[in-house]
Amino acid sequence: MRVFISGFGTVGRGAASLLAERSAMLEARFGEPVSLAGAMDSKSFCIRSGAGGFAEAVSRKESTGMCGPELRGGRSAEDVLAEADYDLLVECTPTNIEDGGEGLKAVRRALGDGKDVVTVNKGPLALRFSELTSLAERNGCAFRYEGSVGGAMPIINLCRECLRGQEIRSVGGIFNGTCNFILSRMDGGLPFEQALKEAQQLGYAEADPGYDIGGIDSACKVAILANSVFGRDVTVRDVSVTGIASVTEDAIAMAAGRGMVVRLIGEVSADRLEVSPRLVPRGHPLSISGTLNAALIQTDSAGPVTVTGRGAGGRETASAVLSDVMAVMESRRRARRPPGAESARPRPGRRRHQQ
Amino acid sequence: MRVFISGFGTVGRGAASLLAERSAMLEARFGEPVSLAGAMDSKSFCIRSGAGGFAEAVSRKESTGMCGPELRGGRSAEDVLAEADYDLLVECTPTNIEDGGEGLKAVRRALGDGKDVVTVNKGPLALRFSELTSLAERNGCAFRYEGSVGGAMPIINLCRECLRGQEIRSVGGIFNGTCNFILSRMDGGLPFEQALKEAQQLGYAEADPGYDIGGIDSACKVAILANSVFGRDVTVRDVSVTGIASVTEDAIAMAAGRGMVVRLIGEVSADRLEVSPRLVPRGHPLSISGTLNAALIQTDSAGPVTVTGRGAGGRETASAVLSDVMAVMESRRRARRPPGAESARPRPGRRRHQQ
Repeated sequence: MRVFISGFGTVGRGAASLLAERSAMLEARFGEPVSLAGAMDSKSFCIRSGAGGFAEAVSRKESTGMCGPELRGGRSAEDVLAEADYDLLVECTPTNIEDGGEGLKAVRRALGDGKDVVTVNKGPLALRFSELTSLAERNGCAFRYEGSVGGAMPIINLCRECLRGQEIRSVGGIFNGTCNFILSRMDGGLPFEQALKEAQQLGYAEADPGYDIGGIDSACKVAILANSVFGRDVTVRDVSVTGIASVTEDAIAMAAGRGMVVRLIGEVSADRLEVSPRLVPRGHPLSISGTLNAALIQTDSAGPVTVTGRGAGGRETASAVLSDVMAVMESRRRARRPPGAESARPRPGRRRHQQ
Repeated sequence: MRVFISGFGTVGRGAASLLAERSAMLEARFGEPVSLAGAMDSKSFCIRSGAGGFAEAVSRKESTGMCGPELRGGRSAEDVLAEADYDLLVECTPTNIEDGGEGLKAVRRALGDGKDVVTVNKGPLALRFSELTSLAERNGCAFRYEGSVGGAMPIINLCRECLRGQEIRSVGGIFNGTCNFILSRMDGGLPFEQALKEAQQLGYAEADPGYDIGGIDSACKVAILANSVFGRDVTVRDVSVTGIASVTEDAIAMAAGRGMVVRLIGEVSADRLEVSPRLVPRGHPLSISGTLNAALIQTDSAGPVTVTGRGAGGRETASAVLSDVMAVMESRRRARRPPGAESARPRPGRRRHQQ
């Protein structure tokens, strides 16, 4: 399977490194090798034989700052993809929630050309979900995006695979580690401004933290869950959003006096789409501290199921890409297999009772 | 698909009710109806046309206390299964960790006859795991057991499906809701004896609570995780076990003074198999209170992933059975499908670039 990686920042490189490390396992398990068909960043690209292997591309980027030997010049992502021979696009460019940016164009082009797509980019999913899933279905393509919500925390595949058969009533959670770090530090008595400064010093918050602390990043994830888990057709603009800038030390202290903490919770259900700071009892699965993400899934028969994990980090998010890539390889393997191979071994009882 | 349910207590009846509720969805999704081929409890059974539907069997049991019109008399579970026409055994009899009891015999018989098996019974898995998985493999049978650990909390399928591709380094968790309830009440200042009494009054603990508070139930689950997730070949007797009866109020108070709680943690890795009370920091994903179960999965690239859910309850545990039943139906559907059906739609790009 030939993989093209678009976006070669921490996540794209993390995915390339993980695919390099796991290549022997993948080939043994799925019966075909995984190779790098090409990669691009905002300024350069490599395709075909110039791409080398996954590890070679990572080391080229890390030593030269360039993704490949060729300069993008005026070429769009679509132009570059049109030149590449690939089976699967791994899309890891930064999220653009104005118009989806190059990420949306690349995903649309790949699906339009009948390629499988794995993406961690929230923009296309939070803006044009139904268009892209319809396109994928029409062209018989896999389209997977576990890493777009919660990084390494399984949530979309968890709802679809492990909780298969459940009616999922709501998903509420902590979808932004920066906000959770700040609120956790405020639990310890720090004022908001100081907690934010600490988050910036530790590299958890951007110099311009508005996208995180304003709740927009969480709102993108809520929109993606609404579309993917609840079958709704929404965009990030449909989400009601309150960020954490207005959470005061007094509010935190008052909550603590009642055995509670304040957390920024995103919630989605059939009729709810919201991001806002809320009170959570200590000992509750969503009362976690630090940069983790968490999600509480309410189901009709399993009851509540909660999952937590690292919501960011190149290697962590790449682990979600790997899981999706393996699901794509599994369906490619099945499509190649002869019928009945699934139950090739003798089944004495089956035979005995078959009519 | 004809389902035989062995064990018709809360979990067996929960599974029957859930299959009744979901029957239209299952048939639409997998292209075959799901019917009750038979059911048995310790005293009675029903098979073939006498079984009626899932809902009918549940209401018969609830109104008459009998699983079916026929008395077991001297007939073993194997004798009854030998008379039944079924494709899938759902095994829900109580755990027996002395010799696996009738549950082990029924699972062995079903797999030996080439039937698929879904079980929630810890005994066979904590005592004879490798024998049973080899038998299933030899006969081409599905053998699934998500509900045996953590009830409705996905853990085995989570590790295998959502975390596919990860090297799992350890799984540590709270696998007994009774102990967690008692320890949570002790956090609030209650002595052990009083917390235990409260658990018994609320129906969370048995009159003879030794199996839970002695850590044996948790040890069974640790052994099952060692076998299923780590590919080890162990039994419950290989697990080093300390229960919670020796946890004092002083120890809890001292922990609280350091911002910690005491929880009964089961841990498994390549070289560890242990159940013991441990200190957990407040705010840590395993610091949860009440009857929930939780598991912290340490992976090489996703980092730590934690999941929590209801570890007991008929309907909750039945939700894990449903998930496994659906996985079996999916593989039956695939085995019936013609080759290439996986990618039946035109893939313009594929064609364009294929050599």
